[in-house]
Amino acid sequence: MARTQPATRPFPAAGDDNRVDRFQKTRAVTEALAAPLSDADATVQSMEDASPAKWHLAHTTWFWETFLLREYAQDYALFDERWPFLHNSYYEAEGDRIARMRRGMLSRPTLDEVLAYRAHVTAAMEHLLDRADLAALIDLGIAHEQQHQELLLTDIKHALFHNPLGPSMWDSKGLPESGIRESGWFSHPGGVARIGHQDDGFAFDNEGPVHRVLLEPFALSRRLVTNAQWDEFIADGGYRTASLWLSDGWAWVQGEDISAPVYWRDDEHFTHCGWQPRTDDAPVTHISYYEADAFASWAGARLPTEFEWEAIARGQEGEQAAHDPAGGNQMDDARPPTPTGSEGLFGDCWQFTRSAYLPYPRFVPAAGAVGEYNGKFMSGQVVLKGASCATARGHSRASYRNFFYPHQRWQFTGLRLAKDL
Amino acid sequence: MARTQPATRPFPAAGDDNRVDRFQKTRAVTEALAAPLSDADATVQSMEDASPAKWHLAHTTWFWETFLLREYAQDYALFDERWPFLHNSYYEAEGDRIARMRRGMLSRPTLDEVLAYRAHVTAAMEHLLDRADLAALIDLGIAHEQQHQELLLTDIKHALFHNPLGPSMWDSKGLPESGIRESGWFSHPGGVARIGHQDDGFAFDNEGPVHRVLLEPFALSRRLVTNAQWDEFIADGGYRTASLWLSDGWAWVQGEDISAPVYWRDDEHFTHCGWQPRTDDAPVTHISYYEADAFASWAGARLPTEFEWEAIARGQEGEQAAHDPAGGNQMDDARPPTPTGSEGLFGDCWQFTRSAYLPYPRFVPAAGAVGEYNGKFMSGQVVLKGASCATARGHSRASYRNFFYPHQRWQFTGLRLAKDL
Amino acid sequence: MARTQPATRPFPAAGDDNRVDRFQKTRAVTEALAAPLSDADATVQSMEDASPAKWHLAHTTWFWETFLLREYAQDYALFDERWPFLHNSYYEAEGDRIARMRRGMLSRPTLDEVLAYRAHVTAAMEHLLDRADLAALIDLGIAHEQQHQELLLTDIKHALFHNPLGPSMWDSKGLPESGIRESGWFSHPGGVARIGHQDDGFAFDNEGPVHRVLLEPFALSRRLVTNAQWDEFIADGGYRTASLWLSDGWAWVQGEDISAPVYWRDDEHFTHCGWQPRTDDAPVTHISYYEADAFASWAGARLPTEFEWEAIARGQEGEQAAHDPAGGNQMDDARPPTPTGSEGLFGDCWQFTRSAYLPYPRFVPAAGAVGEYNGKFMSGQVVLKGASCATARGHSRASYRNFFYPHQRWQFTGLRLAKDL
Amino acid sequence: MARTQPATRPFPAAGDDNRVDRFQKTRAVTEALAAPLSDADATVQSMEDASPAKWHLAHTTWFWETFLLREYAQDYALFDERWPFLHNSYYEAEGDRIARMRRGMLSRPTLDEVLAYRAHVTAAMEHLLDRADLAALIDLGIAHEQQHQELLLTDIKHALFHNPLGPSMWDSKGLPESGIRESGWFSHPGGVARIGHQDDGFAFDNEGPVHRVLLEPFALSRRLVTNAQWDEFIADGGYRTASLWLSDGWAWVQGEDISAPVYWRDDEHFTHCGWQPRTDDAPVTHISYYEADAFASWAGARLPTEFEWEAIARGQEGEQAAHDPAGGNQMDDARPPTPTGSEGLFGDCWQFTRSAYLPYPRFVPAAGAVGEYNGKFMSGQVVLKGASCATARGHSRASYRNFFYPHQRWQFTGLRLAKDL
Repeated sequence: MARTQPATRPFPAAGDDNRVDRFQKTRAVTEALAAPLSDADATVQSMEDASPAKWHLAHTTWFWETFLLREYAQDYALFDERWPFLHNSYYEAEGDRIARMRRGMLSRPTLDEVLAYRAHVTAAMEHLLDRADLAALIDLGIAHEQQHQELLLTDIKHALFHNPLGPSMWDSKGLPESGIRESGWFSHPGGVARIGHQDDGFAFDNEGPVHRVLLEPFALSRRLVTNAQWDEFIADGGYRTASLWLSDGWAWVQGEDISAPVYWRDDEHFTHCGWQPRTDDAPVTHISYYEADAFASWAGARLPTEFEWEAIARGQEGEQAAHDPAGGNQMDDARPPTPTGSEGLFGDCWQFTRSAYLPYPRFVPAAGAVGEYNGKFMSGQVVLKGASCATARGHSRASYRNFFYPHQRWQFTGLRLAKDL
Repeated sequence: MARTQPATRPFPAAGDDNRVDRFQKTRAVTEALAAPLSDADATVQSMEDASPAKWHLAHTTWFWETFLLREYAQDYALFDERWPFLHNSYYEAEGDRIARMRRGMLSRPTLDEVLAYRAHVTAAMEHLLDRADLAALIDLGIAHEQQHQELLLTDIKHALFHNPLGPSMWDSKGLPESGIRESGWFSHPGGVARIGHQDDGFAFDNEGPVHRVLLEPFALSRRLVTNAQWDEFIADGGYRTASLWLSDGWAWVQGEDISAPVYWRDDEHFTHCGWQPRTDDAPVTHISYYEADAFASWAGARLPTEFEWEAIARGQEGEQAAHDPAGGNQMDDARPPTPTGSEGLFGDCWQFTRSAYLPYPRFVPAAGAVGEYNGKFMSGQVVLKGASCATARGHSRASYRNFFYPHQRWQFTGLRLAKDL
Repeated sequence: MARTQPATRPFPAAGDDNRVDRFQKTRAVTEALAAPLSDADATVQSMEDASPAKWHLAHTTWFWETFLLREYAQDYALFDERWPFLHNSYYEAEGDRIARMRRGMLSRPTLDEVLAYRAHVTAAMEHLLDRADLAALIDLGIAHEQQHQELLLTDIKHALFHNPLGPSMWDSKGLPESGIRESGWFSHPGGVARIGHQDDGFAFDNEGPVHRVLLEPFALSRRLVTNAQWDEFIADGGYRTASLWLSDGWAWVQGEDISAPVYWRDDEHFTHCGWQPRTDDAPVTHISYYEADAFASWAGARLPTEFEWEAIARGQEGEQAAHDPAGGNQMDDARPPTPTGSEGLFGDCWQFTRSAYLPYPRFVPAAGAVGEYNGKFMSGQVVLKGASCATARGHSRASYRNFFYPHQRWQFTGLRLAKDL
Repeated sequence: MARTQPATRPFPAAGDDNRVDRFQKTRAVTEALAAPLSDADATVQSMEDASPAKWHLAHTTWFWETFLLREYAQDYALFDERWPFLHNSYYEAEGDRIARMRRGMLSRPTLDEVLAYRAHVTAAMEHLLDRADLAALIDLGIAHEQQHQELLLTDIKHALFHNPLGPSMWDSKGLPESGIRESGWFSHPGGVARIGHQDDGFAFDNEGPVHRVLLEPFALSRRLVTNAQWDEFIADGGYRTASLWLSDGWAWVQGEDISAPVYWRDDEHFTHCGWQPRTDDAPVTHISYYEADAFASWAGARLPTEFEWEAIARGQEGEQAAHDPAGGNQMDDARPPTPTGSEGLFGDCWQFTRSAYLPYPRFVPAAGAVGEYNGKFMSGQVVLKGASCATARGHSRASYRNFFYPHQRWQFTGLRLAKDL
């Protein structure tokens, strides 16, 4: 049995030669995403789970400064010695930091100052980008910043939603039409599946080590659950029927008085383009794990495991590879993320699995602060697969493991049903 | 016995002829106070008790629009029909409104848009300012806006305090020197005192009706309690000695882990000019009622009643009028509010009394939404007298009644001891 | 001006010669009240405000042991050295104690052990009862135990109410008929009233010192507000009309989803005899200050001040003494407390005033632990006058000041309207 | 691939012929466990997670009444029609029920009444015990009651712990000596393991269906972690070292100010025999998942998965069966549960695994209310294996899955380390 990646390289490098381009583009996209925002927009924090856009701009820059420049760039001086306290997210090994719910107090530094910080760090990084020994760390920094691009989008959506004016970040003109066209099921005969990151490209540490898992025969829906189906669930009393819900979920529904996905209002939903009519056959998004599980029960189906999803995505032991990860509806540049119902497994929305977010066999976090990236979050959360319309395209890997608490729903989360065969 | 003001005129007009000037100056001062703030600064909300600076700019304008323009200006159209929902503070009669703790979500409207709103309403008011029948209501609007000038100052101070960078709103150069020079006691022989607003000027409804109160002989300190005295209280274990505290106060000290005034840190305190060294003989500020009461117990004294304080301020039945209210350290224009230890009863800080904030005999709130201005808050709060360094000068009346909950301390609150004779 | 009672005798003795009888009777009544309860009934605690019946039995005994026996009885040894920790209520000077909400954990000591403790202490007290120097302290102990008789009754009522079986503590047979017969108003011409305890009998420290207060002409209703009137208030939308409520009260109504007095259910209410039909013209009870104030607004009246109420009770400067305090519906022995609508100001229910619970002029708490009896609670609470059907008869004094937080309503609280003349 | 148990028999019967004896013994043991308790002891509820002993006595009886007698016994009348509301735990399909935290209000029915209820139901069950068609349901009822025997023990321990007197339920004389003697590791070569209930005996629905899981080579400690080892962890700063903890665990440690197992105090710990000295080499108990995980990190090891634990217990593909489940320190009769450090995997304490409590492949809950037994709790909890000193002996199955939330620690929970090979 392969012992997989050595513990000393938990984050492998992508291995390609366009690292400079990828770095530059990533930095540019982050800034483009924030471009429609005023300093005030970028300062607002709507809840503890969400951070201000400006903070994302700064935190991603802190990451480069802390893990690359401060460690490896000769004579690099911190842009501002007081700022690491502001922009460290959760790295205990990097010292104290501002309370999470106080990030919304940071009207200073100004957006312009943060953009200057970004420019300074982007320029300083130039000298490190071609160092082979730092390739893995640089790829991690790129992936990290791309993850925060998605968070920037979902967090500002949540903030604007709480403004009674329902402000729009982009014009809705020219948005792609939504509508799922696929139907039917992918089927899998069961057997041994090889799970985890297994090619030469970059991956997060939590995607490995590669290991084998035994599957029983199952099927996975080719289509995501749609808004129209969700309307049926509501009309059928789904939110008022205790027997459909997990016990924790039922307590959540009653305690929080939940009766629809978070951004729904009558026939509209809130988007980055403000309040818009919902499309019946677009994928439902912004639901919690509890809602996804209750819907699956109502539909006489179940959620897939993360292993089933990955096996279909790989096409390993079933039919052909289900999908070209390069396809699908994901984020290429700064435009309003919109679930369109694209083909294949990837894109549109993160799809809940019933798998808890736990370490794979032989998983060992990296040494030092970077080891806090994923491992310490392995309790109480569930795995989601597939990438959303707000996810940077390069993140659509079969092995990618996103994770959230079962009540959270400010991400583009949806579901794809599974059943036993 | 005089039946005092008729119920139909709870808010009398000031009676002078410079209403236009006062209106214009008030509008200008509010804007000058916010001038050092960016849109982001003006958007931030640090707690439910405090509102964003931008909200104060807009709410004071909403007040003019709602109670004057919409009612009395011919053909006046709302600046924006969606905005009253944003800028109504607590007037149930004016309909639904944004949740208090969501005011910090208002990155839109922008600061520029709010300033345009201000200009629009200020201009529209021009035609109403000389209408005699509206004089009382206009004077109320002016007083209301001045009250919000103080709140704008205390609220932004609280917000900036929660930024780890400790930003400064103004330069500290040229600030007046602090230091109380007065000493000794005002004494009062007891007897009947006439309490409540009794001249022709403007007053809030809660300052009347005039009525008589019986006092016993007492003395009121000529000096405010100072930072140095507070340091002694701390050094003597004041915050750890249960017997000094009210029961609710002791629960608050222990539950919130309180050990100093809110803005203190080592030998510094936070000001509108950032962190600054404390001055020993400046008045202590930013304390709660519980702290004030415990300090008085520790000092072998007590807090005055609101009636004792007012009697001294009027000099009615004791010695000469204690003070010219026109003096004292209060806010004249846009500069950093700083307690200096000025002469007399007024200014520097609001002074806790032991009086609960309750209606005076025969008090009847005004009809309609304006009646919600003061009356409905008459439970659970205590009366403070005297005006602070952040209070607009015209507010230093003997009859003025400020009120806060006993745990609140983000205002410039301090104390002046009293004792029985 | 009289300087009233010396600070060294805050709790005067009653001065009569039947102290032994009163002590014995008080001890016996407390036990008779608990007689219908099992050990389990007497152990249950339904909320932080309420204590188990067994705890009241033990705490009142601890009071004698701590303030009398331990101090003055020769060679007295504590009944159990571990018990003071259990039975100290809130006396900081007497050391640490069990958390208030943990009193319900005391299945041990058993009820029998607590009764043995009572017998032991009652017997030990015999030798102290005729000591003249302890007369004031003994009278305090008696009054203290009587206050806890009332609390025992209201606390067990609250506990039994939370049992879905609605258990009954006494049979309802032979209960007196309820129904207010009085009508009209007591009127008072205003002027100086002498307030506070002024005869030779026992009083709590908070009833003094005597002082004078100026009143304006007013009237006080001869009848308490009835259940039928409260039904009208509800039918008229009283609980849904913001303009009737204090701001804190409206937040309470909405946050706690309040729509009726606490023990109401359809046409019944919960009593010490289980669920019983309500009587239309019996006094309404178990309401909060917020509800009392809103009702008074709805009725076009107001709550009296504590001074107005006392002035009518004394008949000092108005008409004849309003009532013989010896009359009224109060607790004489162990039977179900029932508001009957008796004549006069005293009895049936504690009546809310609009006065905050604050120290009278020159009030100084007693030295030592006994000084914590009343003084430290003088913030955030309101004064109630008049005694309830669960109050020991001797407590109906014009000067008696009961006090509760404005949201509390598990006591027999009601209201009597007042109006200006 | 075997399709395992049909969905229609989620709870198989034990298949043996001593069902009457087992039923009678189970009923008797439950009562024997409560025998040392007074009615008051049996009424007390210390937290929402724990129920009063009397409630356990009644709820287990309700289970027989609801699922057997009411359904299958001719002419059976409910013992009391109002009681199902009191004693239903969480079965939504069985209707409304008392709020969980209000179970502590049930001083009535009395302990004697509950025991009469037990006798009535035990007698009524006699006629159903030999019905073959009910065998599975009766075995479920027995297992259910045995589970509540353990809860009765852990819940009353928690209640007595919160009594400052530290009452004892049993004498500590004659308790077995504690001390782990085993050492070394069980090793497993990896490969396919057959997981889930696979013999003819009774099992809960969540133990199936049988399915195969792929394991990598690993070792499982032969000894449980001891008190002395935990002392070392504490001395080494384990509770103050963020890097050892899961993120949720670190928040819990800091938020709740955790620094030792729940029942520890100096060198003692609280037991059913009151406060007793701790034994160094006895197994540590009453820790949370967070603590177990942090300890494992500190020890350079990890927690096992539930599959690893079960594979060792079965000896399937590794060495000989690790242990005879009939052995070990578990509960045989009513005596103080005491972790002794017995041989083998079973007994002493429930052992945390790192597996989330999730459905096995093809798991389908039973139809009707009984289907709520296990399935709806499959989110947010972790699996524990092995049985504790308070678990009824028959429950030590390799396939048994206990489950708790990661912060809970009032059960006899401990840990056994694992490592990769």
